[in-house]
Amino acid sequence: MYMRRFDCDYMAGAHPKVMEALLRTNMELTPGYGNDAYTAEAKHLIREAIAMPDAEVFFLVGGTQTNAVAIDGILRHHEGVLAAESGHIAVHESGAIEASGHKVLTLPHVDGKVRAEDVGRYIDDFYADETYQHMVAPGMLYISQSTEFGTIYSLAELRALSDVCHSHNIPLYLDGARMGYALAAEGADFTLSDIARLADVFYIGGTKVGTLFGEALVVTNPALLRNLFPLVKQHGALLAKGRLLGVQFAELFRDGLYYEIGAHAVRLAVRLREILRAAGYDIVIESPTNQQFVRLPNDVIDTLRQSISFDYWGPRGKDCSVVRFVTSWYTTDEDIDVLAAQVG
Amino acid sequence: MYMRRFDCDYMAGAHPKVMEALLRTNMELTPGYGNDAYTAEAKHLIREAIAMPDAEVFFLVGGTQTNAVAIDGILRHHEGVLAAESGHIAVHESGAIEASGHKVLTLPHVDGKVRAEDVGRYIDDFYADETYQHMVAPGMLYISQSTEFGTIYSLAELRALSDVCHSHNIPLYLDGARMGYALAAEGADFTLSDIARLADVFYIGGTKVGTLFGEALVVTNPALLRNLFPLVKQHGALLAKGRLLGVQFAELFRDGLYYEIGAHAVRLAVRLREILRAAGYDIVIESPTNQQFVRLPNDVIDTLRQSISFDYWGPRGKDCSVVRFVTSWYTTDEDIDVLAAQVG
Amino acid sequence: MYMRRFDCDYMAGAHPKVMEALLRTNMELTPGYGNDAYTAEAKHLIREAIAMPDAEVFFLVGGTQTNAVAIDGILRHHEGVLAAESGHIAVHESGAIEASGHKVLTLPHVDGKVRAEDVGRYIDDFYADETYQHMVAPGMLYISQSTEFGTIYSLAELRALSDVCHSHNIPLYLDGARMGYALAAEGADFTLSDIARLADVFYIGGTKVGTLFGEALVVTNPALLRNLFPLVKQHGALLAKGRLLGVQFAELFRDGLYYEIGAHAVRLAVRLREILRAAGYDIVIESPTNQQFVRLPNDVIDTLRQSISFDYWGPRGKDCSVVRFVTSWYTTDEDIDVLAAQVG
Amino acid sequence: MYMRRFDCDYMAGAHPKVMEALLRTNMELTPGYGNDAYTAEAKHLIREAIAMPDAEVFFLVGGTQTNAVAIDGILRHHEGVLAAESGHIAVHESGAIEASGHKVLTLPHVDGKVRAEDVGRYIDDFYADETYQHMVAPGMLYISQSTEFGTIYSLAELRALSDVCHSHNIPLYLDGARMGYALAAEGADFTLSDIARLADVFYIGGTKVGTLFGEALVVTNPALLRNLFPLVKQHGALLAKGRLLGVQFAELFRDGLYYEIGAHAVRLAVRLREILRAAGYDIVIESPTNQQFVRLPNDVIDTLRQSISFDYWGPRGKDCSVVRFVTSWYTTDEDIDVLAAQVG
Repeated sequence: MYMRRFDCDYMAGAHPKVMEALLRTNMELTPGYGNDAYTAEAKHLIREAIAMPDAEVFFLVGGTQTNAVAIDGILRHHEGVLAAESGHIAVHESGAIEASGHKVLTLPHVDGKVRAEDVGRYIDDFYADETYQHMVAPGMLYISQSTEFGTIYSLAELRALSDVCHSHNIPLYLDGARMGYALAAEGADFTLSDIARLADVFYIGGTKVGTLFGEALVVTNPALLRNLFPLVKQHGALLAKGRLLGVQFAELFRDGLYYEIGAHAVRLAVRLREILRAAGYDIVIESPTNQQFVRLPNDVIDTLRQSISFDYWGPRGKDCSVVRFVTSWYTTDEDIDVLAAQVG
Repeated sequence: MYMRRFDCDYMAGAHPKVMEALLRTNMELTPGYGNDAYTAEAKHLIREAIAMPDAEVFFLVGGTQTNAVAIDGILRHHEGVLAAESGHIAVHESGAIEASGHKVLTLPHVDGKVRAEDVGRYIDDFYADETYQHMVAPGMLYISQSTEFGTIYSLAELRALSDVCHSHNIPLYLDGARMGYALAAEGADFTLSDIARLADVFYIGGTKVGTLFGEALVVTNPALLRNLFPLVKQHGALLAKGRLLGVQFAELFRDGLYYEIGAHAVRLAVRLREILRAAGYDIVIESPTNQQFVRLPNDVIDTLRQSISFDYWGPRGKDCSVVRFVTSWYTTDEDIDVLAAQVG
Repeated sequence: MYMRRFDCDYMAGAHPKVMEALLRTNMELTPGYGNDAYTAEAKHLIREAIAMPDAEVFFLVGGTQTNAVAIDGILRHHEGVLAAESGHIAVHESGAIEASGHKVLTLPHVDGKVRAEDVGRYIDDFYADETYQHMVAPGMLYISQSTEFGTIYSLAELRALSDVCHSHNIPLYLDGARMGYALAAEGADFTLSDIARLADVFYIGGTKVGTLFGEALVVTNPALLRNLFPLVKQHGALLAKGRLLGVQFAELFRDGLYYEIGAHAVRLAVRLREILRAAGYDIVIESPTNQQFVRLPNDVIDTLRQSISFDYWGPRGKDCSVVRFVTSWYTTDEDIDVLAAQVG
Repeated sequence: MYMRRFDCDYMAGAHPKVMEALLRTNMELTPGYGNDAYTAEAKHLIREAIAMPDAEVFFLVGGTQTNAVAIDGILRHHEGVLAAESGHIAVHESGAIEASGHKVLTLPHVDGKVRAEDVGRYIDDFYADETYQHMVAPGMLYISQSTEFGTIYSLAELRALSDVCHSHNIPLYLDGARMGYALAAEGADFTLSDIARLADVFYIGGTKVGTLFGEALVVTNPALLRNLFPLVKQHGALLAKGRLLGVQFAELFRDGLYYEIGAHAVRLAVRLREILRAAGYDIVIESPTNQQFVRLPNDVIDTLRQSISFDYWGPRGKDCSVVRFVTSWYTTDEDIDVLAAQVG
């Protein structure tokens, strides 16, 4: 019996349909750097999906470089980026934002989510401080959908964040590394088109949602982030065989594969969560997406690990710990059955 | 009849054997960021190929980011990198080196190659100048093998460069984006192991030599470039599904595929060159590798372009221009036959 | 009657003796960039004051640039600097540290002071986290003496911080913008020589303690921070007429003027504090140095402002606010008398 | 007999009138960071001198930091700064421009001067190159008046440079470290007001023209360089006692002292040059300003050095070398007499 893996959502290669597309086009010869028909098609499909024919779309390889390019491209020298204390750019990008010269200005969070009122208060307090010119000005807001904790912003929350940003003259940037799972989340009341309307810049993650790699950076307000080509190249983020990104994203968006993957993984994550809840374990965060955080007794953890892998997040109370289970396109009902059998 | 393409060496996806390996392993679940068995195997195979069991090997996605990481990691703040005026980092990386804070200090070149005597003179003159502390100190030498012009350094030239660097206390860094074609070049008298012995840091390019993407950074003197993992992440260059790099490089080095690709492309490039020479055209640079630079009448260029694509490099004399033809693993004898029929 | 000013400690030019030295030497012709006899003398005097004949001493113009140079020079790429959340580099340097590529990693503070146990815990927790390579490594500790709140570290606290840093292999850097007032503080149990023994790098501030401008960066462990000259120049911090710094610091340290200034300002600050305490006002922070933080009724503030200026720090409770009074070498007993008359 | 010094133009402190102003105001208490009446007066005087009441004026301490702030503030990420190969930013600033992330793009020069035609050709060629997005875009032009070689641009040349920049949509930035000597140069046909009209941003140097230190950055097109305060602070270039700059520049511009200093130094430099020419020595560059470059036999150099100091620039032909003589406000006719007596 082999190990069932719930460690993260980037453990396999590409979704079989994406892989098939790469294989099918492998021997074609096309120009490099994204100047090919597949990239053009993928850009067109994403513009259609968000109903914004004039949006700028640029494909990059990974999330850290996409965040670095977007933030470095948007901010002026004296500005920093507001983000949740738990945000990926604040914690887990080895200082990539600072390496481009910008400070991450942190906000408190609730289960990974930033509140609009905190954003407004931060900016108001900033400019009320007589010494503000000696401090780093809040130049944009970074949020992620879904968050590091699997939670999602509702449409009303997104609207409030968008409003507070725009009434304070800063753009809203949304990290959608796991957007596919957010769109398919239980109770999700927003669409990709809503995201595009409310965020000034965002990215649609491929790495965790079906591709070998790749993120689609979307600039709904092109004046905000010009000269993307040289900026991406300067950040070392321009893929020579750019069409690989086009081929993959075209596959995700041509017939709805992107949404299917999200729905599949979320369905299994919810099944998993309810099995664990039914078995009497604490669900630490009420996540409606593909990441689930559960408090388990340490001896249960030890037993489970013989057949199942997952992430350890830290001790919680006496003899217990919080662990994370993640599903993806490659997770199967059979995987969940194995878990159920262990905790049942 | 379809177009025969000689524009560059990254127009197709991956060599079929590499693609097959990606397909074969696609559904396996492994940890991310290179902590997988394929990456371990690929590192082992490269260490064997260079006969250096203790060398540090790290896989990155593309050349610009590899150069940026290596140079940023090696240099101290007050130092710059010596390179040929025509060097890739000096011209074609959108300022990636400067974006990391370092100046590219340029040297004259002969057909893309730097001379050891010029390196020595630069460093000697630098420290002889009383104002040297107000200038950027030469902190390392960057060369590429093969060069932007398809030429190669002989073993003696490499040894001279290595010697002049070490006698002047700076490391030698070699950009091997096209190393596969250099190793297979006509008259090449060096091995990968020679490169590893003479350079302190170098990279073995995959993108142009058979993989979808990927470059293997090799640090033969690990003291020179520590903490690669966070440095790579900070540069946005850490691939989440790191095993994709391991799978591909293992395929290149397990049974010599890397060398076969080089030999194949060089054989066809030489065939192409001699056809053009025999047809009476000037070979502008005597390149022994997969890039060939030829002076053609403009009307010949126009005619050829109906069935063949290639790069335009610039006007040369009255009614003529220099163009570049590039072969790769996907170039066929039939492609060359088509060219031959056109100029014959 | 003119306004008595307690806004900050850099409102006047230089201490008359320092000014006199500048005037006395004004017409002499000397080489630039610190290659002059006055700079040599000043370095010598500081080395004597700390009893470290081999320490490296370098004079810079201002505090922000001194911090930027020291931190940028010490840290490796993947490292950040630990500092109190209230630290100057964390709040009031317009992102100068991040502009050099480094993250400021914040620690909780007590009245501006970092606790050794928090430093140790941060570093231990960091390396205990499996994802630490994706995060910014703590590469040094920044503290200031005195702090933003006028408090001082005792010798025991400094020793504990030095110990925890060194047992965790990071250097201790001390910002001494107001060191003169710390050395003269009520209850101060440390000397400049203790500072030099316990910190790896520190600076002795001149701008706030008697000079027109200027900070003396001292590197007690020269291996930690090499190539200062080009690093300072690159940071735009090299003064052409470097001797101006030498002349001023020589004046401060030739006959103990530096210590006299500290003692004078602290004596007056304590007098001021006790007058306010006796008048029934809350002393918000028990500061033994030249900065005093007091809670005053808003109507008292309004009245005082007719004859006295000071800094407003923020509201505190109903109808009250916290304000800051700062003394310096130019504060007089008469200034304090005027305050006493107002609140008496 | 003491040494007569012609090494450079920053060997003394401040012009006596400037020093007197610093002394006169020394004990006044004013707010920091340039928020004082002297700074306001100095800004007003400079705006009057250039007849531009809306120009932004900001005072910084030194030239390298002023260049770094201006260039970093103007350029966008993918852009570099065009400059003569001999330009100060290209050679003698320890990589300060690159440390801010920008490449210096070099142009050929004639006696330190850039030609408008070369600027136009560079930009035209850049955008004609199909790979231009992989290269660093020319984003501004840097020139200095006077140049590193003491030469000056005529009004026609300045106009041509301004025209070529603006017709190519890049701003013109002028480094005026020695502008005072340029304005007073033999044959100078331009005024400060012409400079202000033709350059988008420039600075008026104080360090070499009478102040202890200080440069006045002038932004004639304020849209080009906003948020100067935090940008200056971030670069570590904000002087705490900002009024010191205001006091000095007000003194220079209140009654024409700035122009007097220039005229004095140029008159003596011309006297010196003609003495050396009459003595039969080669004037290497026909400089109309305070720097003079002369070819002298090495034995003459040795003899002169017993009573006179000057800069050695390098060997020129058999037994000869080029040396530089520099005059300043503190140079006297008696100094020139001593030289004349030596070579007469």
